[in-house]
Amino acid sequence: MINAYAADSAGAELKPFSYDPGELKPGQVEIAVEYCGLCHSDVSVVNDEWGMTAFPVVPGHEVVGRIVALGDGVTHFAEGQRVGLGWHAGYCGHCGECDTGNQNLCAQAQPTIIGHHGGFADKVRASADSVVAIPDGLDPAVVGPLFCAGITVYNPLVQFDIKPNSRVAVIGIGGLGHLALQFLNAWGCDVTAFTSSDSKRDEALGAHHTLNSRDPDALQSAAGQFDLILSTVNVKLDWNTYLTTLKPRGRLHFVGATTDPLDLNVFNLLLAQRQVSGSPVGSPATIADMLAFAACHKIAPRVEQFPMSKVNEAFKRLESGEARYRIVLQAGQ
Amino acid sequence: MINAYAADSAGAELKPFSYDPGELKPGQVEIAVEYCGLCHSDVSVVNDEWGMTAFPVVPGHEVVGRIVALGDGVTHFAEGQRVGLGWHAGYCGHCGECDTGNQNLCAQAQPTIIGHHGGFADKVRASADSVVAIPDGLDPAVVGPLFCAGITVYNPLVQFDIKPNSRVAVIGIGGLGHLALQFLNAWGCDVTAFTSSDSKRDEALGAHHTLNSRDPDALQSAAGQFDLILSTVNVKLDWNTYLTTLKPRGRLHFVGATTDPLDLNVFNLLLAQRQVSGSPVGSPATIADMLAFAACHKIAPRVEQFPMSKVNEAFKRLESGEARYRIVLQAGQ
Repeated sequence: MINAYAADSAGAELKPFSYDPGELKPGQVEIAVEYCGLCHSDVSVVNDEWGMTAFPVVPGHEVVGRIVALGDGVTHFAEGQRVGLGWHAGYCGHCGECDTGNQNLCAQAQPTIIGHHGGFADKVRASADSVVAIPDGLDPAVVGPLFCAGITVYNPLVQFDIKPNSRVAVIGIGGLGHLALQFLNAWGCDVTAFTSSDSKRDEALGAHHTLNSRDPDALQSAAGQFDLILSTVNVKLDWNTYLTTLKPRGRLHFVGATTDPLDLNVFNLLLAQRQVSGSPVGSPATIADMLAFAACHKIAPRVEQFPMSKVNEAFKRLESGEARYRIVLQAGQ
Repeated sequence: MINAYAADSAGAELKPFSYDPGELKPGQVEIAVEYCGLCHSDVSVVNDEWGMTAFPVVPGHEVVGRIVALGDGVTHFAEGQRVGLGWHAGYCGHCGECDTGNQNLCAQAQPTIIGHHGGFADKVRASADSVVAIPDGLDPAVVGPLFCAGITVYNPLVQFDIKPNSRVAVIGIGGLGHLALQFLNAWGCDVTAFTSSDSKRDEALGAHHTLNSRDPDALQSAAGQFDLILSTVNVKLDWNTYLTTLKPRGRLHFVGATTDPLDLNVFNLLLAQRQVSGSPVGSPATIADMLAFAACHKIAPRVEQFPMSKVNEAFKRLESGEARYRIVLQAGQ
């Protein structure tokens, strides 16, 4: 049996929940959870905001733990090895995206917490091809958020071949943004942070410049400056003005899921060959690449730790918007 | 004196207009106009739709003619040489975009017909660095539209490194679209044309497949198919559904200046790493590259020819939407 925390209906508090995962299937691994990050997507799925939650739902998709069982055919992990598991717990393995190393874009990818039980538990299972080894030098107590928040902001740097001599801005300093700033600083970029929070503007976190994201004068002062803007927020901002802060050929990239339509003016794209895009998490190979980069550059999530038994308090803390900057639950506590 | 056709106020008919261009400046060339294409942008500027027209305005920015005078320092052209002139008649020459061969994105670029007299005339002047030699094998009577319509649809193939094994769709079969279909066919792509016109759907023009751009079933049947969609139209379509016809990592690219905001759903970008972009005309080097490609593959605008003295009839024909597919004025007639 696996002992977990689950919500049995939309918006319900999490309660202890045990389930029998059955026999370990070929290609799977079982992980004894040590730590698991808490992500806004966990809240969205518990609240069924996307209309696709399968109840009871066991959230948790920033898992750090040790392999305790290997399914048939899994030869690239060993029992006792420390690994991480993120948003995806498996892929179809044979589509055009899987075949080209873009498993994160597989249309049949299995989300860890939708139709599958996640990491707020003593154990979790996943396809071995979705699990990534954690290299030495990364603190297991804080590394969990790299498996969702971290890879979400790191992946665009790889996908769009961002260069160290690029000027990059990050909108929002939160769970994703505080990692983006660290990655971009180590990547060699000239880094600007946009935030509406005065206190966060005072914390550099790797940014060379900080600007008030809601101050029209600050935006105007940045006209034509950036090669890339990463938006990590889920609120509506004046996107057309943000477009004007891009250089010709610059990119406004969304990793934050703002629900309002973007209402973009085509001329802002057309006249200076600008582009707008979005992306989800990354592939296993990109996650492994990110972990090596984080280990080299001592990049780590700043976390607040809660015992897993206090998961409902952790949810409230996350929803307060006060957490700096990410929450991790410690299993067995 | 240069003998031209000009409008003296917004929306006015064009009338004969002579002006003294003064002494030829260093770096300039004077071109005796043989042919000049008529573009929707000429109409927009005559009507002052963009609020930046300088009256009297001499339209015409798809010029084909022969060099008749060389300013000091111009050594790469010879008198009598046949050249073309497009949307830009000069660049600043020293900004980051000019320095890197992206002169078409120079913020100080001089439009040929805004604050400068264009090609509906017996002669026109321009900076030599904005003029491109026309290679043998291209018919001067029809090549003019390549200098604006042609480069606008060709440039994205170069900018975004489109491969022959890409699947590409073109929205709209008009002045731009009929050239896009020919270029993409020669580029090796699998080409789909979206149009709302039954008769245009029957003319292949290089498309391997045609679909009704306003038929929801046709759009649904194309889900997840395209690497690139080029929109050449200036009307509002259901862009979020068009996004779903892109493969993961696919691009919806605007070369048509639709004035309604795009109202894009971020999730359509984010979940499959899709992108939306726009671009204007291309650089002189890309224009030269396009002309060589067109000569090799026998790509030519399909035009209706009018004598330049009938310029007002030509405007009416363009505005009727009936021209197939581009209009060219013959000078001296």
